[in-house]
Amino acid sequence: MPDNAPAAALDLTQDGPALTAALVDFPSVSGTEKPLADAIEQALRALPHLTVDRYGNNVVARTRLGRSERVVLAGHIDTVPIADNVPSRLDENGILWGCGTSDMKSGVAVQLRIAATVPEPNRDLTFVFYDNEEVAADLNGLGHVADAHPEWLEGDFAVLLEPSEGEVEGGCQGTLRVLLHLDGERAHSARSWMGSNAIHAAAPVLAKLAAYEPRRPVIDGLEYREGLNAVRIEGGVANNVIPDACTVVVNYRYAPDLSMAEAEAHVREVFADCGVREFVVDDHSGGALPGLSHPAAEAFMAAVGGIARPKFGWTDVSRFSAVGVPAVNYGPGNPLYAHKRDEHVAVDKIRHCEERLRDWLTVRLP
Amino acid sequence: MPDNAPAAALDLTQDGPALTAALVDFPSVSGTEKPLADAIEQALRALPHLTVDRYGNNVVARTRLGRSERVVLAGHIDTVPIADNVPSRLDENGILWGCGTSDMKSGVAVQLRIAATVPEPNRDLTFVFYDNEEVAADLNGLGHVADAHPEWLEGDFAVLLEPSEGEVEGGCQGTLRVLLHLDGERAHSARSWMGSNAIHAAAPVLAKLAAYEPRRPVIDGLEYREGLNAVRIEGGVANNVIPDACTVVVNYRYAPDLSMAEAEAHVREVFADCGVREFVVDDHSGGALPGLSHPAAEAFMAAVGGIARPKFGWTDVSRFSAVGVPAVNYGPGNPLYAHKRDEHVAVDKIRHCEERLRDWLTVRLP
Repeated sequence: MPDNAPAAALDLTQDGPALTAALVDFPSVSGTEKPLADAIEQALRALPHLTVDRYGNNVVARTRLGRSERVVLAGHIDTVPIADNVPSRLDENGILWGCGTSDMKSGVAVQLRIAATVPEPNRDLTFVFYDNEEVAADLNGLGHVADAHPEWLEGDFAVLLEPSEGEVEGGCQGTLRVLLHLDGERAHSARSWMGSNAIHAAAPVLAKLAAYEPRRPVIDGLEYREGLNAVRIEGGVANNVIPDACTVVVNYRYAPDLSMAEAEAHVREVFADCGVREFVVDDHSGGALPGLSHPAAEAFMAAVGGIARPKFGWTDVSRFSAVGVPAVNYGPGNPLYAHKRDEHVAVDKIRHCEERLRDWLTVRLP
Repeated sequence: MPDNAPAAALDLTQDGPALTAALVDFPSVSGTEKPLADAIEQALRALPHLTVDRYGNNVVARTRLGRSERVVLAGHIDTVPIADNVPSRLDENGILWGCGTSDMKSGVAVQLRIAATVPEPNRDLTFVFYDNEEVAADLNGLGHVADAHPEWLEGDFAVLLEPSEGEVEGGCQGTLRVLLHLDGERAHSARSWMGSNAIHAAAPVLAKLAAYEPRRPVIDGLEYREGLNAVRIEGGVANNVIPDACTVVVNYRYAPDLSMAEAEAHVREVFADCGVREFVVDDHSGGALPGLSHPAAEAFMAAVGGIARPKFGWTDVSRFSAVGVPAVNYGPGNPLYAHKRDEHVAVDKIRHCEERLRDWLTVRLP
């Protein structure tokens, strides 16, 4: 579709499962979201109770009712590459199959249904639709909006409709990737005493990792589970050379009670006595506190029911946390099938999720 | 030069340094030795006191004087690829520069000079010129001759004219390369407790290597120095995946008092308790005893003078050892410059080496 073609229309009056199917059949692999962003913008602009803003292919729509609280419902509109699984297909068991059914066009459908059907919510609402979540972090549309228009994301509580099978997953763990460089001195392996072996120098690093006891802190009633792991090791020059360099790539997944600085300091401390020549932070995304003790979150938990689980992986809730908005993951998709050829969603979960959110946002507040 | 072109002639009446220069100027990178083998065969066939045999590009010439002892003088005629260092150049300080000057056309020149100038040696002589020493072990011409015509290599003592700076280097150490495979189970690194980290599983292997105390056994008066080293380590799937496999490549350089089976058993024993899933012998070449207590070797040492040194690297003396012929390395080249762009040899060393060998092979035996 050429960039300036008129956007295909999205009909927000159809039910959640049908809208999910329509969104899946509107391919939007990362980097090609413009037509879908156009369609979403057009559909939202037709709703008189919403003010709509756009930045790139990111669309933000807000009510301005002067409520005492504001809730943000957010979702990314891109998918991973299609794997022969578009158009969508609804089977006789109520399962909708196709790329993005779980991650996360069913969540986007729920956002759009709430936008269309709740013109007078009990809390002010902000709907965020963003691009490029499935690719490199620096392309992420939510990050771009947070940088350029942080006021668009303001709120008391945020729900990210990432797949969580209709369960609430609180906050997210941080993830820090560090390169540990060990040194040695090259020599022919027939005269190894002339050199110094950098792979042997990694022995204390691996010993620390093997013996490491990860924390399992409880935060807002959720038990997080940390992990400190080598995800890569590399060393060696040739089969007859004592290697002069070895690198261990370590990934620290940490609970959201640690700040980024604390997480980095912890890893430095773990390996302090291991003879590491250079400690390089290769990648770092902070965690997000679950924020379940916030009144809006408590009301949310009461409305959607169930018991919140900790989110172990990193998600964009962290970007809300970074701008001071507590956030949870709550969406109809099943995360186990995200990015898979047999990706699917149960239409019951889509309806359930939409109903629970509508109840929460329409019940009379005390 | 086409394969069937007449061989360029080699003049064996010129002195050792001049003959070395002629050999260097006759390029014979591994795999292209035929013209040089032709020239050597033709030059040797012109000598009436020698019987000449050929197998591939390997030339073997023997005296048949019925002496009580037979000595083998052996050298490879190939070089590593030329690095802008041919033709040869003799500088004003008596240094001859060029590819193969050290490794080992100066040694080949000495062999040819002895062949040409010692028609009635005190011991029967066998001259072996072979190809493909600088490439994979299975291409090695000396190995091919040992397999096809082992009787051509028979003798009481062998001198391999590999570069040793005119010092005798006895025997050689064995070299064993083993792949140690460690196992784990993949999982997302955000939920590391669902898997098992194969890189962490390598911790005991690296600990053993770091703590290993290599032997320094004395054999025939020579102190060898062993080494057990990781020469490569590899593990990792992706930056967010707990790796299910890690491989440590270990090189054991061992003194020649151990058999190949003993060396392998030793390495298996070192890593017996380290949780290694699979132990794969990737490459193995046995050591060679120095054989300096043999009467021919004692006479050789007395003739060439100096104090024998142990040979730490692996050389083709091991192939002689395998067929029951004790062998030493003794050649004019400097091994430190072998395979280098600035490869060179001192012409004095060439003359010295030739003279010492001639003395040894012409002195009246008691």
